[in-house]
Amino acid sequence: MARNVILDSDTASDDTIAILLASKLFNLVGVTIVSGNVNFEQEVKNALFTLEYFNMDVPVFMGSSRPILGIWKTVEEVHGKKGMGKIEHLESNRKAEKEHAVDAIIRLSKEYDNLEILAVSPLTNLALAYLKDPSIVQRIRKVWIMGGAFSRGNTTCIAEFNFWVDPEAAKIVLHAGFDITIVPWEVTEDAAFIDDNLWNKIEKLNTRSSNFFVSVNSTLREYSKAHGAPGSVQTDSLTVYLAYDNSSILKSKKYFVDVETCSISRGAMLIDFYKNSKRKCNAEIVLEANRENFIKTLFNVLSN
Amino acid sequence: MARNVILDSDTASDDTIAILLASKLFNLVGVTIVSGNVNFEQEVKNALFTLEYFNMDVPVFMGSSRPILGIWKTVEEVHGKKGMGKIEHLESNRKAEKEHAVDAIIRLSKEYDNLEILAVSPLTNLALAYLKDPSIVQRIRKVWIMGGAFSRGNTTCIAEFNFWVDPEAAKIVLHAGFDITIVPWEVTEDAAFIDDNLWNKIEKLNTRSSNFFVSVNSTLREYSKAHGAPGSVQTDSLTVYLAYDNSSILKSKKYFVDVETCSISRGAMLIDFYKNSKRKCNAEIVLEANRENFIKTLFNVLSN
Amino acid sequence: MARNVILDSDTASDDTIAILLASKLFNLVGVTIVSGNVNFEQEVKNALFTLEYFNMDVPVFMGSSRPILGIWKTVEEVHGKKGMGKIEHLESNRKAEKEHAVDAIIRLSKEYDNLEILAVSPLTNLALAYLKDPSIVQRIRKVWIMGGAFSRGNTTCIAEFNFWVDPEAAKIVLHAGFDITIVPWEVTEDAAFIDDNLWNKIEKLNTRSSNFFVSVNSTLREYSKAHGAPGSVQTDSLTVYLAYDNSSILKSKKYFVDVETCSISRGAMLIDFYKNSKRKCNAEIVLEANRENFIKTLFNVLSN
Amino acid sequence: MARNVILDSDTASDDTIAILLASKLFNLVGVTIVSGNVNFEQEVKNALFTLEYFNMDVPVFMGSSRPILGIWKTVEEVHGKKGMGKIEHLESNRKAEKEHAVDAIIRLSKEYDNLEILAVSPLTNLALAYLKDPSIVQRIRKVWIMGGAFSRGNTTCIAEFNFWVDPEAAKIVLHAGFDITIVPWEVTEDAAFIDDNLWNKIEKLNTRSSNFFVSVNSTLREYSKAHGAPGSVQTDSLTVYLAYDNSSILKSKKYFVDVETCSISRGAMLIDFYKNSKRKCNAEIVLEANRENFIKTLFNVLSN
Repeated sequence: MARNVILDSDTASDDTIAILLASKLFNLVGVTIVSGNVNFEQEVKNALFTLEYFNMDVPVFMGSSRPILGIWKTVEEVHGKKGMGKIEHLESNRKAEKEHAVDAIIRLSKEYDNLEILAVSPLTNLALAYLKDPSIVQRIRKVWIMGGAFSRGNTTCIAEFNFWVDPEAAKIVLHAGFDITIVPWEVTEDAAFIDDNLWNKIEKLNTRSSNFFVSVNSTLREYSKAHGAPGSVQTDSLTVYLAYDNSSILKSKKYFVDVETCSISRGAMLIDFYKNSKRKCNAEIVLEANRENFIKTLFNVLSN
Repeated sequence: MARNVILDSDTASDDTIAILLASKLFNLVGVTIVSGNVNFEQEVKNALFTLEYFNMDVPVFMGSSRPILGIWKTVEEVHGKKGMGKIEHLESNRKAEKEHAVDAIIRLSKEYDNLEILAVSPLTNLALAYLKDPSIVQRIRKVWIMGGAFSRGNTTCIAEFNFWVDPEAAKIVLHAGFDITIVPWEVTEDAAFIDDNLWNKIEKLNTRSSNFFVSVNSTLREYSKAHGAPGSVQTDSLTVYLAYDNSSILKSKKYFVDVETCSISRGAMLIDFYKNSKRKCNAEIVLEANRENFIKTLFNVLSN
Repeated sequence: MARNVILDSDTASDDTIAILLASKLFNLVGVTIVSGNVNFEQEVKNALFTLEYFNMDVPVFMGSSRPILGIWKTVEEVHGKKGMGKIEHLESNRKAEKEHAVDAIIRLSKEYDNLEILAVSPLTNLALAYLKDPSIVQRIRKVWIMGGAFSRGNTTCIAEFNFWVDPEAAKIVLHAGFDITIVPWEVTEDAAFIDDNLWNKIEKLNTRSSNFFVSVNSTLREYSKAHGAPGSVQTDSLTVYLAYDNSSILKSKKYFVDVETCSISRGAMLIDFYKNSKRKCNAEIVLEANRENFIKTLFNVLSN
Repeated sequence: MARNVILDSDTASDDTIAILLASKLFNLVGVTIVSGNVNFEQEVKNALFTLEYFNMDVPVFMGSSRPILGIWKTVEEVHGKKGMGKIEHLESNRKAEKEHAVDAIIRLSKEYDNLEILAVSPLTNLALAYLKDPSIVQRIRKVWIMGGAFSRGNTTCIAEFNFWVDPEAAKIVLHAGFDITIVPWEVTEDAAFIDDNLWNKIEKLNTRSSNFFVSVNSTLREYSKAHGAPGSVQTDSLTVYLAYDNSSILKSKKYFVDVETCSISRGAMLIDFYKNSKRKCNAEIVLEANRENFIKTLFNVLSN
């Protein structure tokens, strides 16, 4: 029986493929939108458009239109003006729900047993849901987080984008007591890149979904290549996939993990590798992922 | 016609008198409870007990049981084990509402024109209400804040308790665009102390309310005297009073005001006195208050 | 018998009058130059020019040409392009000594009994002297510091210029164990301003020194008036004077004092007013100074 | 012709082997002692003892007895009570020079062409030398630094010991303009461990130097094994070796590198891997080192 999940997303480029994957691999009970990649209202439109395009019947809940402290910048240079690469007509007949994402998370955690959160975005919504109702920790079975860098910050020297956008939220979630698995930036960089060869193969599939993939990730691809990667990095999709197929987590370990909220290291993920702090482990860090399995599944999904 | 207000309170000692005053001077449409002085559940009980004691029909809404980052300590040494001085039996027949304080603030801001917030507490509830619905800024007429120190921090060298408990919340509220007036710690220290002479006069009133005042503030009084004050400092009551009688604000000025969230100055109130930052004024700072008027009103209320 | 002092100075505007006063009131055994107000080499020239102008035979030692972390900005807008108001020809026949200020401070602390430091500048030189030879703490009788703001930062919201330029140095000096008296910014603002009336009287003196005073402080005067003061504030001179005439310190108290080195409060002076930290007092804070005495002495000096 | 080097050392365990190696591979013109691993006076004794034991005629200069801000802790648990493993009688007939290390560095940079600094320690001495005489940047050909962690902090979650002890010094040195190569902690962990097999082989050499090696590193070995390493990690020796044999630096790259001085990430090394900051590269980071070459050379030196 399919596992029940909410996907928490700042919908742009790869987020859409993560939504697609999540709908195939899980019972996707809701998509909650959070501030991050691009203009918040645009993100909502992007999610609604994606669901309509793929004819998925999943409610969209609008969450926080800014990170907790409101200090961040959107990254249209990474994802395109509207966050969707070459796709610029993003109107749809869908509408977001009236219920706030924070309330939806709390309610759904009561309605669905063993609800899991796939958080491929800044953690604002989940943090605010926890602050409103701390008992969600007992009800949510698992939180999967794409976020944090070991040391190769993609936004500042040390900080990955999702943690950098809302380090306060990341800190709140990490210390809340959830069962957490984190897929850090470098792991996705190693296992989730789409090199030219693969990109061309996907392009040749010429399916409704492969065409969408190619269009929506086009700006991300250029940006990634300009920054030294062999192609677009599908960080969010990999995280959804690893949540589904835990056996593709080749190496992982539990650590005490904290987040820096101050100074020039704001957004840094701090992992107590040597257990010097004596503090209790609060997250499992994925250290290595099975690239082949992920690519195979992604390719299959895009083939249909 | 009475102005509509919500009192946001981490109910202990002086907060109760602030509730009493607010109910006399305003149309008090709700008391929202926030983490701060003592155990959160105890604060809720303290507010319910106070309302029952004074036979006031005001709903109590439970808000955030911790500050945003969850880093703080309660101060039973200031307010007594349960936060209510000598009063230790604090059971009542009242119950808090089911609605969360954050939702109540948002709803009441729609139901009541010109709603004002009397925030004599850490600003967690108001910050979270704003994050959930930024449009409350347009609907809430005024936010009165007891918080911040110029330089005589009562909690750390530089930080006053309310700002220190939740500097992130204070920062969110200050930058949200509300019409804000701040009554800093030193102003209350100068204008709202109850010296022995006055204390004894209040004691002799021997009314239901004066007896309550003396009991509930007894620990605060001892603590204040041990820290150099001539008696208990009724910071919250003064703030409620100044909100009511603006003419008793003898000196005030608009400034750009910020809050430090990092390092050893965490919780510091930063006021751009010389306007060097060129940033827009976002709060009126009370610099001097009319002690006599306040004391007179307080005494009158306690006489009945 | 005159007390032996070193004046540590980032020579500009009022620093020159502090040099003049120090030479009259003390046995001035050296002027050490430190980075701060304007270009370091210019500061050296300004000190040499001042000493030549007043025909004083005092060695000048070049110290640190930047604060410890090298993060600061000079303030030509306050003191004039060369830091000396209207005086722009600042060549002299004097030369600075070869010995570094840090070595000079260490050596002079051995040669002169009861040496005192008049530090009217960022504390870089003294901090580096201490780091090189911690035993100077035992030999230097007293350190007088102009620096720090209670809350009216003249450089950022909370930070006074000298502490802001080198907060690391201020922290090192404060925690070194020296016998320290601090004259904060607000005390000088209250007691050391030269209003129009007084300025005109000084102008009319028409002595070599009054003419110098008027020229050298002309830009400072304009700047101060534009920022709300009634005229130029002679912070450095007041500090030298209070070091000389301790009876003109009307109110002062010993506290534990720290300095913020991080975040937006960088340079803040943190005073443990309520002694909550339980840490040992490390500085006497001047809270109020006798303006009349200071002005009288200044006027006398400028009359000759 | 041998290259001229100063070894800057907080002498304990592996530092002594670094001294030995430096004397074999370079013209070692001085050892400068800096606060770090253990009590400063003990470090001086450890260096003098080591030089006497190996009959090396190299002057020892005492530097800073504390990091710039004086916030750190010594790590006797890593290196033994006196920092020298099982060797506890550490008296020698040698004496340190009278000249301060800071002055020695400045002087030697003038006396020796192309002087290089092997800094296997906190960077306090070099930072203070630079602050006293910034022109040393032009004279010192190269600074080799053992310090910083990519993400596996050995002292806090993110900070390596040398950078953590004096992050201000590290920041000063990194931004001074020196030609810098950094050997980070993880590189030494990978390339410079002495596993049981190798340890036993060294033990069997039974030379004067191998016996010293085994004794002096005994506590470090236990500590390293207890923290997951296969044996003692000879970080300082590897750094000296890589400075000598640059061809054993298998992978390295120039980056802009900064150091965090604030908050819980204090001491973190921040590397701009994606060159997002647009700031000029200021250090070459060693990413991989030739373990075999290092071990071979170490073994040869210990064989004699």
